[in-house]
Amino acid sequence: MILTVTLNTALDLTYRVRSLRPHASHRVSEVIERPGGKGVNVSRVLAALGHEVTVTGFTGGGTGRAVRDMLSGMPRLTDALLPAAGATRRTIAVVDELSGDTTQLNEPGPQISPTEWGAFLDRYEELLPGVSAVALCGSLPPGVPVGAYANLVRDARSHGVPVLLDTSGEPLRRAVAARPDIVKPNADELAELTGSHDPLRATQDARRRGAHTVVASLGPKGLLAATPEGRWHAVPPAPEHGNPTGAGDSAVAGLLSGLVDRLPWPDRLARAVALSAATVRAPAAGEFDHAAYEELLAQVSVTAT
Amino acid sequence: MILTVTLNTALDLTYRVRSLRPHASHRVSEVIERPGGKGVNVSRVLAALGHEVTVTGFTGGGTGRAVRDMLSGMPRLTDALLPAAGATRRTIAVVDELSGDTTQLNEPGPQISPTEWGAFLDRYEELLPGVSAVALCGSLPPGVPVGAYANLVRDARSHGVPVLLDTSGEPLRRAVAARPDIVKPNADELAELTGSHDPLRATQDARRRGAHTVVASLGPKGLLAATPEGRWHAVPPAPEHGNPTGAGDSAVAGLLSGLVDRLPWPDRLARAVALSAATVRAPAAGEFDHAAYEELLAQVSVTAT
Repeated sequence: MILTVTLNTALDLTYRVRSLRPHASHRVSEVIERPGGKGVNVSRVLAALGHEVTVTGFTGGGTGRAVRDMLSGMPRLTDALLPAAGATRRTIAVVDELSGDTTQLNEPGPQISPTEWGAFLDRYEELLPGVSAVALCGSLPPGVPVGAYANLVRDARSHGVPVLLDTSGEPLRRAVAARPDIVKPNADELAELTGSHDPLRATQDARRRGAHTVVASLGPKGLLAATPEGRWHAVPPAPEHGNPTGAGDSAVAGLLSGLVDRLPWPDRLARAVALSAATVRAPAAGEFDHAAYEELLAQVSVTAT
Repeated sequence: MILTVTLNTALDLTYRVRSLRPHASHRVSEVIERPGGKGVNVSRVLAALGHEVTVTGFTGGGTGRAVRDMLSGMPRLTDALLPAAGATRRTIAVVDELSGDTTQLNEPGPQISPTEWGAFLDRYEELLPGVSAVALCGSLPPGVPVGAYANLVRDARSHGVPVLLDTSGEPLRRAVAARPDIVKPNADELAELTGSHDPLRATQDARRRGAHTVVASLGPKGLLAATPEGRWHAVPPAPEHGNPTGAGDSAVAGLLSGLVDRLPWPDRLARAVALSAATVRAPAAGEFDHAAYEELLAQVSVTAT
């Protein structure tokens, strides 16, 4: 069983409008609601791949109830979310019908109290012994200490559970020093961490800071991995046109899936790149097309660098 | 007791962002949630003025639960809302901190089934006998017949209950012919109904179409009323700077309040204009400042035309 941690879950709304114009009034022609937050997205992809997944973190309020209601209908997915007094944030993606472009509005998320944070730490300790891998994903909600992920990385490692981290900024910087098994920054997050805009140099530097493996996501240019066994660059057969929302979360799911299936690194990277490209190609944000995934998997090129 | 009908209730969200830019990602710095839909807004103002109000219409889903939770804490307000299978719509007002301007995103609202509509008609019949006035407010959700307001006007009149109508388009056109006591269109709605952009001519024309009294809201220029007792123009002392959201609903509340208090028409209009201006002046959309209302009430000028 894989454990995913989403401290700042979300109710993701996608609105379709003809064309977004500031200071005008718009009729929304279509509303799609999804449970969200990076770890929740990762979990949905893992479950779709056939893995058993447990979701933990916080939800609260009416928006949190909506998230849990939607998760409860999904096979292979276990809800171990904890209640927060504040309401789960909404994110709104406003898609222009004319241009296909997306405008994003993100609520900040609820304040987490010290008591709530303590309850989470207890739950995390209870869950770790039964787990094959853990993913720590996304931003920290207000009230959670900035060193939270560093502590969660240490806890997982002390239980012998491999841990993947996907976050940014100061929480990433602190947690890297706690020696996570895998970090998956994008190019911007990696540059912010290391000060270098050269991905090859930056992935090496991030390893020196403590991460055992660094997998940098380079958007349409695929994944660049620096691991204890070697370095690889995995690229999709062609740039995909579509909605990139959730592509990074699908890559994380691919890496975790390959980890628990004990695939060699090149095969893990191929799985992650194919899932990511299949997510961009899918019509709904954060979904992926199984047939496209299978087709792409055979076409990803992985080269040692 | 005053009855308000809001067939398309809403969960009104106000988002504060620095500056809305299409196709960019925005952090929302503040989220305000309010129960909404025109009739609900009218009810909140009536209750704040000291009137007992019963709210009916439809709510559904998690958003509907949020609306009812907020209404349940409000004094003098009775919830007689009916359940709908579909979820209550959200409206989102995105306020730019830099310009102060607002961008509006409105969900369409749930489909109402024939069974749900039938249940509403039964509830409306039950409520009418105990009522001093009824307000029919806002758009019709999908599934409600376009002649709905015409029927509700006839029902109210057959019970001897005075009825105020605030809607637009074809539902307004049909309901005017059913001889409502008061209609309160804005200038655009009145022009659409009558084909005339001259408010004086258009109010007279709307009376000929069936409305006993027409009160046209002319934005910062106040209210123009054509009644069986005469015609008046009521204007605020000066144009108010602020957020006009809800100003029209406050005017409706003022007209109803003056009606049940049996004020002469000039006093009713003064109340409506003062409430409307006090709503524009208030910092939060749809709220009004009691002190500002009292001050403005003495300053509104009402002249026979």
